[in-house]
Amino acid sequence: MSFEKLDALARKLDAIEHALSILGADEATHMAVGGGEKRAEAMSELAGIYHAQATAPEIGDWIETAKAEHLDEDQRLAVGEFERNYINATCLPTEFVQRKTSATMRSEQLWRDLKAKGDWDSYLPALEGVVSLVREEAQLRAEALDLAPYDALMDQYDPGNRMADIDPVFADLKSFLKDFLPEALGRQEQRLATHPRKSLNGPYPIEKQRELGLAAMRAVGFDFTHGSLAVSHHPFCGGVPTDVRMTTRYRTDEFLSSLMGVLHETGHALYEQGLPKDWSHWPLGKARGMGMHESQSLFVEMQLARAPEFWDFMLPLVHQYLGEEAIPGWDVADVLNEVNFVERGYIRVDADEVTYPLHVILRYELEQELVAGTLEAAQIPEAWDAKMTEYLNISTLTDPKDGPMQDVHWPAGSFGYFPSYTLGAMIAAQLGAKMREDLPDMSDQIRSGDFSAINRWRQDRVWSQASRYSTPDLITRATGEPLNAEFFKAHLRSRYGA
Amino acid sequence: MSFEKLDALARKLDAIEHALSILGADEATHMAVGGGEKRAEAMSELAGIYHAQATAPEIGDWIETAKAEHLDEDQRLAVGEFERNYINATCLPTEFVQRKTSATMRSEQLWRDLKAKGDWDSYLPALEGVVSLVREEAQLRAEALDLAPYDALMDQYDPGNRMADIDPVFADLKSFLKDFLPEALGRQEQRLATHPRKSLNGPYPIEKQRELGLAAMRAVGFDFTHGSLAVSHHPFCGGVPTDVRMTTRYRTDEFLSSLMGVLHETGHALYEQGLPKDWSHWPLGKARGMGMHESQSLFVEMQLARAPEFWDFMLPLVHQYLGEEAIPGWDVADVLNEVNFVERGYIRVDADEVTYPLHVILRYELEQELVAGTLEAAQIPEAWDAKMTEYLNISTLTDPKDGPMQDVHWPAGSFGYFPSYTLGAMIAAQLGAKMREDLPDMSDQIRSGDFSAINRWRQDRVWSQASRYSTPDLITRATGEPLNAEFFKAHLRSRYGA
Repeated sequence: MSFEKLDALARKLDAIEHALSILGADEATHMAVGGGEKRAEAMSELAGIYHAQATAPEIGDWIETAKAEHLDEDQRLAVGEFERNYINATCLPTEFVQRKTSATMRSEQLWRDLKAKGDWDSYLPALEGVVSLVREEAQLRAEALDLAPYDALMDQYDPGNRMADIDPVFADLKSFLKDFLPEALGRQEQRLATHPRKSLNGPYPIEKQRELGLAAMRAVGFDFTHGSLAVSHHPFCGGVPTDVRMTTRYRTDEFLSSLMGVLHETGHALYEQGLPKDWSHWPLGKARGMGMHESQSLFVEMQLARAPEFWDFMLPLVHQYLGEEAIPGWDVADVLNEVNFVERGYIRVDADEVTYPLHVILRYELEQELVAGTLEAAQIPEAWDAKMTEYLNISTLTDPKDGPMQDVHWPAGSFGYFPSYTLGAMIAAQLGAKMREDLPDMSDQIRSGDFSAINRWRQDRVWSQASRYSTPDLITRATGEPLNAEFFKAHLRSRYGA
Repeated sequence: MSFEKLDALARKLDAIEHALSILGADEATHMAVGGGEKRAEAMSELAGIYHAQATAPEIGDWIETAKAEHLDEDQRLAVGEFERNYINATCLPTEFVQRKTSATMRSEQLWRDLKAKGDWDSYLPALEGVVSLVREEAQLRAEALDLAPYDALMDQYDPGNRMADIDPVFADLKSFLKDFLPEALGRQEQRLATHPRKSLNGPYPIEKQRELGLAAMRAVGFDFTHGSLAVSHHPFCGGVPTDVRMTTRYRTDEFLSSLMGVLHETGHALYEQGLPKDWSHWPLGKARGMGMHESQSLFVEMQLARAPEFWDFMLPLVHQYLGEEAIPGWDVADVLNEVNFVERGYIRVDADEVTYPLHVILRYELEQELVAGTLEAAQIPEAWDAKMTEYLNISTLTDPKDGPMQDVHWPAGSFGYFPSYTLGAMIAAQLGAKMREDLPDMSDQIRSGDFSAINRWRQDRVWSQASRYSTPDLITRATGEPLNAEFFKAHLRSRYGA
């Protein structure tokens, strides 16, 4: 039976993915410094073996004949999602994949070298090459998927995402934020005038911070029989659902950035740990996509961990693990002064919840133009600056490393990824709003550190659904309506507008 | 060119080996407890992918045509070793491999369950099945390699090892040890009468023991840019040459077992780290085999770390890392009383340097008979007991878990492996003797903690040679003569007979 052939192939592909995930996590956490070159070679060979196995021509026949076999609903969905992956993996000629891989590897390396110097001019030719390849890729994907070129790029990260749906939602959000940001900053100024920021009382030993982070993970539902926390330069959540590898990093002069980072990554981890076991080796059993994944991390970070009621629960833990004198005299409002501090800044990854979407929308708009050919790479700095000035009222022309050179996505050739971040924030807010309707005492549960009903709701609506539906369909099924910016706007208003 | 095809294939196979090595080390050190089942599945799938890639029929043609291509000496050796691996991988029909894998997995699981109870009778049917499969395997390998059946099994672990060479060497050693063991025990009794064993002054905190172990590793030459030390239930040396994963385990009531274990594994690690870079993805560039590998661990453990001059250097480190009161009043002789303590015991892995070979020779003799069909599994307990009584003067009939049920090798179907342990000890002694001729002040170097000349000698004679020669040829090239029991006997006489 062809379905069985696909099942056996899925097991093979899942095993290679397993190896690549663990090797990747290991590289960032436990690998000896001199092991990098050989590790990169091994992972690149494994990726090649994966690609060869995943794109073998007979798979197309197996999929076609499997569809004609007597399949139950799950099997039908499994074959459908397998086919989606197969089309995405085979729609680019091998010659093109090699050309793009080699160009983006060079471009990314060059970017790392030149970013520190802010040397845009020297980097530009490499980026021009990447943009040209991405246009070619978008065209190839568009033809294979029968989508618009930029939609075809987004579809890799969040199946079903379309400009036609996102453009109006982002336009709505942008227009809201341009007015709301000054308002939020004004309120913050008033609040800080009567309740100024307090100072920390470090140093905070790493071992104690680690214990605090583990306690926070445990509290919000992380399963330590299926995962662990380590240290890496860039925090991430990797590994496999049965063995989630989370990392954080520590600084000893403050503890909040590590703790909030741990809570964010725990959101990703809970999604992975909550995926169904039955289809774990099929694409059907994997997490839906980047936007939905980000919604799960931001749900924990933004909907839970930056809410006042969370800190009623968390503040005693901070004292328990870091000592009574760790933050002397702080109450919940003092913590919120820190974790919900809003400011206009240059850097996306450092941005707060209010300004972050403007960084993303700027990139989303520029990406569309770059892919469409209505903007050239050489014009990015001016276009970037114009939007930064319009959205955030700050200029970036003087220092490209704080402007268009700040992110790895474009140097790496990953276009269509950026919108996922803000879609994640909006989905999280929409999930949060619907959850509050179903769980009227949700705030009390958070206050008492009881996340069981919250996690059951998420398990039921999101995690257990894995990749059964497209991203927009999953949103609609989980919340009863399509993505709607009103929920995120309401969330920001209630947190920063009051 | 066919040579290039083999090169590309070697890269793929090396990448899968890399993944399996790191996944294996990770499993024992960092994996979450609930990740085991999925990890086992992934590793089994990867092993299957490896096997499929390594045994593809076109490889035979590539090897044949490559041999006719214009190759330099290294390339010729590389193809030869590749062919040896290919023959070993393809000489068993897939149907047989599946049958043996499934039988030995069940047998090993059953053995784990029944060993603790010492329930030989319930285990016997499974072992009978394994023995029958091993006879079949030996026959298949013998035909493919044109060797005697047991030689064909040994050839997997130490290419070139033949009963015709080993039988007389082991017979010589056995006859020596039967007389020497009582003599060594008598001398030990005399020595302990005038210089009794001293007590330790624990507990020894794990973190301090770890620092001591790292210092010992660093001293004997471990390169921490290409390796690390972690904790696992069973100590091992795994990983890859560019990133060697060593482990140990700690008990807090004493520190010598962990320290000596660390030194043993460091011997393995130095071999891996010292392999040549040029052929690292070919079989030619890998360590020669189990006997040679064990010779490198036993060289560090037995030739270096249990010698008096080593402790002139090590004792101050013990005090430095564990504290002045860690072993109050101990001198080098007190340490030697512990680390060179000889006793007749049931368990191979707990045995000292003098009795260990008798445990191995017993198994070597029984294995040969089992493979030849002159002994049946049901007869093992009696045959085992007869030899234990003859060689070590202790009976094992009452408790099979201390007798023929103690080792995993037979339940796992690994016949032909045991002799490697004692060959390793003999090779280490032979290397040590020849090295002393070339490095007349070797004892002083050890005493001062300077292992650079010693390691250069090993690098030159053993590590850099990788798999260029068969095990016997490598021994002859490194030491100027074939394996000779006299060196090991002289070593034992000088350490335990004086």
